[in-house]
Amino acid sequence: MDKKWVYMFSEGDTTMRNLLGGKGSNLAEMTKIGLPVPQGYTVTTEACIEYLKDTQLTDGMISQIDANMKTLEEICNKKFGDPQDPLLVSVRSGAKFSMPGMMDTILNLGLNDVSVRGVVANTQNERFALDAYRRFIQMFGDVVLEIEHAKFEDVLDEIKNREGYEDETQLTVENLKEVVQRYKEIYLQETGNEFPQDPNEQLLMAVEAVFKSWNNNRARVYREKNNIPHDIGTAVNVQAMVFGNMGNDSGTGVAFTRNPATGENKLFGEFLINAQGEDVVAGIRTPKDIEELKDEMPDVYKEFHETSELLEKHYREMQDVEFTIEKNKLYMLQTRSGKRTAEAAIKIAVDMVKEGLITEEEALTRIEPTSLDQLLHPTFDPKALEEKEILATGLPASPGAAKGRVYFNAEDAKNAADKGEDVILVRKETSPEDIEGMYAAKGILTSTGGMTSHAAVVARGAGICCVAGCEDAKVFEDKKYFQVGDIVIKEGDDISLHGTTGDVFQGSIKTQDPVLSEDFGELMKWAVKYKTMGVYANADTPHDAATALEFGAEGIGLCRTEHMFFDEDRISSMRRMILSQTVEQRENYLAELLPMQREDFVGIFEIMLHRPVTVRLLDPPLHEFLPTKASDIEQLAADMGYTIDQLESYIRDLEEFNPMLGHRGCRLAVTYPEIAVMQTRAIIEAAIEVTKKTGVDIVPEIMIPLISMKPEMDYVYNVIKETAEKVISEKQATLNYHIGTMIEIPRATLVADKIAETAEFFSFGTNDLTQMTYGFSRDDAAKYIEDYTEKEILTSDPFASIDQEGVGQLVRIGVERGRKTKPNLKVGVCGEHGGDPASVQFFYDCDLTYVSCSPFRVPLAALAAAQAAINDK
Amino acid sequence: MDKKWVYMFSEGDTTMRNLLGGKGSNLAEMTKIGLPVPQGYTVTTEACIEYLKDTQLTDGMISQIDANMKTLEEICNKKFGDPQDPLLVSVRSGAKFSMPGMMDTILNLGLNDVSVRGVVANTQNERFALDAYRRFIQMFGDVVLEIEHAKFEDVLDEIKNREGYEDETQLTVENLKEVVQRYKEIYLQETGNEFPQDPNEQLLMAVEAVFKSWNNNRARVYREKNNIPHDIGTAVNVQAMVFGNMGNDSGTGVAFTRNPATGENKLFGEFLINAQGEDVVAGIRTPKDIEELKDEMPDVYKEFHETSELLEKHYREMQDVEFTIEKNKLYMLQTRSGKRTAEAAIKIAVDMVKEGLITEEEALTRIEPTSLDQLLHPTFDPKALEEKEILATGLPASPGAAKGRVYFNAEDAKNAADKGEDVILVRKETSPEDIEGMYAAKGILTSTGGMTSHAAVVARGAGICCVAGCEDAKVFEDKKYFQVGDIVIKEGDDISLHGTTGDVFQGSIKTQDPVLSEDFGELMKWAVKYKTMGVYANADTPHDAATALEFGAEGIGLCRTEHMFFDEDRISSMRRMILSQTVEQRENYLAELLPMQREDFVGIFEIMLHRPVTVRLLDPPLHEFLPTKASDIEQLAADMGYTIDQLESYIRDLEEFNPMLGHRGCRLAVTYPEIAVMQTRAIIEAAIEVTKKTGVDIVPEIMIPLISMKPEMDYVYNVIKETAEKVISEKQATLNYHIGTMIEIPRATLVADKIAETAEFFSFGTNDLTQMTYGFSRDDAAKYIEDYTEKEILTSDPFASIDQEGVGQLVRIGVERGRKTKPNLKVGVCGEHGGDPASVQFFYDCDLTYVSCSPFRVPLAALAAAQAAINDK
Repeated sequence: MDKKWVYMFSEGDTTMRNLLGGKGSNLAEMTKIGLPVPQGYTVTTEACIEYLKDTQLTDGMISQIDANMKTLEEICNKKFGDPQDPLLVSVRSGAKFSMPGMMDTILNLGLNDVSVRGVVANTQNERFALDAYRRFIQMFGDVVLEIEHAKFEDVLDEIKNREGYEDETQLTVENLKEVVQRYKEIYLQETGNEFPQDPNEQLLMAVEAVFKSWNNNRARVYREKNNIPHDIGTAVNVQAMVFGNMGNDSGTGVAFTRNPATGENKLFGEFLINAQGEDVVAGIRTPKDIEELKDEMPDVYKEFHETSELLEKHYREMQDVEFTIEKNKLYMLQTRSGKRTAEAAIKIAVDMVKEGLITEEEALTRIEPTSLDQLLHPTFDPKALEEKEILATGLPASPGAAKGRVYFNAEDAKNAADKGEDVILVRKETSPEDIEGMYAAKGILTSTGGMTSHAAVVARGAGICCVAGCEDAKVFEDKKYFQVGDIVIKEGDDISLHGTTGDVFQGSIKTQDPVLSEDFGELMKWAVKYKTMGVYANADTPHDAATALEFGAEGIGLCRTEHMFFDEDRISSMRRMILSQTVEQRENYLAELLPMQREDFVGIFEIMLHRPVTVRLLDPPLHEFLPTKASDIEQLAADMGYTIDQLESYIRDLEEFNPMLGHRGCRLAVTYPEIAVMQTRAIIEAAIEVTKKTGVDIVPEIMIPLISMKPEMDYVYNVIKETAEKVISEKQATLNYHIGTMIEIPRATLVADKIAETAEFFSFGTNDLTQMTYGFSRDDAAKYIEDYTEKEILTSDPFASIDQEGVGQLVRIGVERGRKTKPNLKVGVCGEHGGDPASVQFFYDCDLTYVSCSPFRVPLAALAAAQAAINDK
Repeated sequence: MDKKWVYMFSEGDTTMRNLLGGKGSNLAEMTKIGLPVPQGYTVTTEACIEYLKDTQLTDGMISQIDANMKTLEEICNKKFGDPQDPLLVSVRSGAKFSMPGMMDTILNLGLNDVSVRGVVANTQNERFALDAYRRFIQMFGDVVLEIEHAKFEDVLDEIKNREGYEDETQLTVENLKEVVQRYKEIYLQETGNEFPQDPNEQLLMAVEAVFKSWNNNRARVYREKNNIPHDIGTAVNVQAMVFGNMGNDSGTGVAFTRNPATGENKLFGEFLINAQGEDVVAGIRTPKDIEELKDEMPDVYKEFHETSELLEKHYREMQDVEFTIEKNKLYMLQTRSGKRTAEAAIKIAVDMVKEGLITEEEALTRIEPTSLDQLLHPTFDPKALEEKEILATGLPASPGAAKGRVYFNAEDAKNAADKGEDVILVRKETSPEDIEGMYAAKGILTSTGGMTSHAAVVARGAGICCVAGCEDAKVFEDKKYFQVGDIVIKEGDDISLHGTTGDVFQGSIKTQDPVLSEDFGELMKWAVKYKTMGVYANADTPHDAATALEFGAEGIGLCRTEHMFFDEDRISSMRRMILSQTVEQRENYLAELLPMQREDFVGIFEIMLHRPVTVRLLDPPLHEFLPTKASDIEQLAADMGYTIDQLESYIRDLEEFNPMLGHRGCRLAVTYPEIAVMQTRAIIEAAIEVTKKTGVDIVPEIMIPLISMKPEMDYVYNVIKETAEKVISEKQATLNYHIGTMIEIPRATLVADKIAETAEFFSFGTNDLTQMTYGFSRDDAAKYIEDYTEKEILTSDPFASIDQEGVGQLVRIGVERGRKTKPNLKVGVCGEHGGDPASVQFFYDCDLTYVSCSPFRVPLAALAAAQAAINDK
């Protein structure tokens, strides 16, 4: 027996989504629960897959379509193609996932030169019938045979001009007859065939067109981008037409069962009397608020209201529905989960839990974690945004919206901000020297660098809006302007940045500040309740630590020590230390830095108390700390008693070809163990001090960066351990502490079993791991990654969401081998991926102990972690 | 029953090397085959291991030593410590592997104040006896109790001065009595104990001292460096003394069974009449040629000659023997494999095969592959070298020796070379712009960069001596001098470079050119016969290709195309191509380059004919090709119609933070497919042309660099494929060709199964793979790798010999996964590791199809490959 290729709506339900598609399965479900749905049938996704093998409908499909049409005729008590009272149908695509780009809708299929007269006779409305016919020809020509839309529009425009009409509603019956005639001529001219008069032929052509559209370019691209498989096909829904445009007792509308902007539990929608569905969307007439239907058609409103409530209860989810009223009778045409703002999503989820409709776990899975970004950062006023044209687009490096005057160096930015200006810092790229200016800015724009460039990392950490790697903007820092094409933006000019999309605008766009609702707090409580993986924050200062705590961080997974040295009063000691030519000299300057460094840790430990704080030893190449301005170099040379030539030569000695792979991380501790000694001393002394002061046992975790082999781990471990023990015994204290390592070099994952013999914890640095596993410099990759995404070689930026196929393999290897040596090894991740939901899910699957991310991403990570745990059940 | 800790020589043989050590097992073996060996016994390596647990000889060991001493007394018919005719013994360490740093030798043990009189009585030679006694005290004090050698020497010097003696032989019996007395006083003073008079106490102290010396620092360091395990211990040999200094019927000597410098099959050695072994080495008296022994003691000579022949036949290897003649009786004291020069090693191995002594396979395994380097490159005259002091030491980047005048830029170097000067090019680092100057130089010295830096790679490829990364040399290129400490070397000054050791010398050292012997050719024939893995060369020019063929390369595994563009007549087209701002512009300049590029390939294909030639598409970041000199920039701007500002801005746009991880390799082909199109066209057109001309089917292999993912492979593959097919059809030709990829990015190894779906061959680029797997920039790593080796964190440079533990894992993964998809996938390696014997063995174990290395390393790689195949049997 042949496969069943076609299902009547009454034969399906919502569980058959794979086979019947989203739209089809929902129409079936509504039928099943007794709602007034115009009946019809669905040709399955399997038929589509089979069809695409040799782009031919099989005999079995054709005969089943035929048989189901017979059944539909019986239900509707009309005949397809009947000259007196023809059954008209709509044909719509409907894949498992909503998918723009495919063929959408053909209405009024079944009309031809004869049956159109039957409609006239039946409705007593010739204009209506002719209008339906001409719309059908146009849609069929456009959609099935890809005749240019404009060709049809030209005819309408010509007649409207000739008659002096303002809009199409003024077309007379005679005009419409002409239109139909001329549309058919266009059809003949473009296709070489007469417009098909056989409704069955029309139907099969339409079904085939839907199937074929599965493989059109736009649909393929959409699937690639959204990770939808290419082999699942689309269904086709054939449904009896109902008409909202049959007079003032008819109408059509769309509605949400709750407010999709705010989440308020109140029907929200619009309708039009005497109109077809497309008119509501087209915007020719202004639809009315759904509440007005209560007055105009109280019975219909009541039925619709009840139906909406029923649907929401049935689906246990806010619904987006379409309906048509034909001569006072309500028909439901579609229902689906309604799109909503982040704010609404949270309110709806929390309300539904309170209403007993869904569980807390369900509520958690219904929020897209990245949508929280909107709630935590300023956004543009949507109206104001609409009016603006995009000047350039870079990478969405740190979310939010910002407006302000541009400045091209940190000092100018800081000064302007001190005077109360809103400032946007614009740089080719930022470096640690720019920190103060960055913190002072509302937004940061860079022309080079990727999602994990210095600008991006610092901005996300501080919750500052940032667009990075905006290659179209040519930045001339010394001349204080940047240029996009011919447009020049000078110091003091206003621009606006959209850090969530990467868009840059000329001028100032109104922003609105975030307000966190009680519902948000409630949801976060549940997230904490259900998640099993820890969520820590990356925080380098007491201020960051406090922010992190506010957002619910359970610890600090990464406290970078390098930013601490850029304060004005520290950088000169730091520079002298770096440029010391003997160990003694270096130790002197380190002694100057020690008390400041200790103060940093005291501040952080006092805030975090019993919570884990992981301090990473100095990581960046030393060259980053050195002065570049001639005046700074002169001063420093004088201070240190060097000639300028000498100093410049020392500075040059520290330059590197590939600093990313250069003398940094633990390699500094190997060459200059005295630096690690000073940092360890500062950490341990601070921990002892805070323990004494607060009575809470501080247990610092000291993390070594850039380890690639066990002997290196052993060497630095011993330097730290000896120093720590010495300090503890000097202070006659007792203190627990842990010494662990970053796992961020490919080799480290491969020998993780050996490294774990010494290391007491692991933290994956997936930024560097991605750089080295791909061979992509995060600072240079923006240039070519753009070409890669354009050519669809890369579908996502591996610095934004972890590359599970490649880098992920190394993460798995690292975890497995580390735990082979120490089964209870604490393993976290402190790369930027800790704040990406797909990555969080992956890290959960890898059984990591915690993820650590920017403070502003903690809620997002917590939600993603909760979802991962719930998915796992 | 207790373990057997002690073996008489008569109880062992050469198979017991692990237990008895090298020296002990050979003494046992010689005893076994009936040679005249002074008898004795060996305390085992197991005893050493046991002893070191709590540094105490067990009762069992002591009683076994005792028992074996009894047996020895019986054999010698003397008593240990006997006042009339004492048995005297030597005590020597002897581990499995010869190992400097450990305690060496104590002679005359058993002498004391009483037994020395017995010796006097017995030998009728008071002077001899006293001299033996004072030597014993000195050695015992020095070696067992670590009393400073100088303290004893001071006494001798004082007496010699007082008496006006020239040397020690003038010391009278009275003098010697004084010496003995004062030595004993030193001993008491330094140790707090009287010099031990009990021979058994002397013996046990000596045995313990040998055992302890296993763990002294020098020995540990030596083992680390030579990969000798720390837990195998050393044996101790106790042997009856014989005396070569008992008169003119006695003597001592050392000999090799063949000439260790030339390999000539003729006894080679020296002897001294009336002397102890150490006198031969000490150089106080001039030894005589062993041939003279024939006249002086014909019977002894005959016996020694026969014994030597017997030993060589027995061991089937050239022996290095020590002997002593005591009153006309010959004693053999030691035999072992003799050290020899590379030249001798080859001659001996080949001769022994001809003599039927060993097989061809054995001959192959007896040559250390790296020793071939000596034969293929100029070397310093050893005498001349000895007199020179080392100025500085860098990395031994390309072997050989060179002398010449220093020049600090390529142009000056080229001009001087053109005038016939021997030139040494000195640079901070080299870049492709320096190529002509590099080729013109006899040697290259750089102050930065590692074993795979540009200078190193080019120099090895061209067989030019190179010392790289010589950090002690501060190079001032513009001022045309370099400085090591206070020594300044200016343009035109002479220096000499030792590329095999990395040493740099001031002034000129005489060099000698390599001459390849027939034996070398014979050995290489056997290598080819027994090896199973292919050996290809990296060659970029017809000239290199010809050299490669001469050295026996079976193909070209890597033909880099970038060097081709640095010729004066090409670089300007190349630069214009790079700085083009439209595709059209770029295609124009590419069209200029096409015929030149095609010529390159024609030349190479004509030489290589049917042998595989793997051409890699453009790899380096484009910035490398751009001008840096102001005059060049001006000229180029004028040529291209840009302002200087514009051109500088375009150049700046191409600068990168980490060019190694930047826009290079296949990423260029993604951004500018037109470059790959031009290169493919050049390759395919050249192949068609040479096929037509020679009638040999040329099958080019086109290799894509820096692939990290399958979609990238697919994209570039398609660009190449389409172009190739187009060219083939244009030319109406038929041509086979293959498209494959480098595997040099960690991620590529992890997804090798997917990449192999498209790629038709793999070639591991282990230079880049090492850089990224370790996170080591080859250009910057020299700085910190030095600290790493000093602190023993790294035991070898991973750029010189592949890191099997880490990088090697990725190679294995890559091969396995690639072959999972394509079981017969051709997989090679074209990194610098292809010329390192340990790496070649590793690649053999990974089942690679071939290794490819610098032409000058082909013989070495072939030998290593043959050894790998033989080891596998």
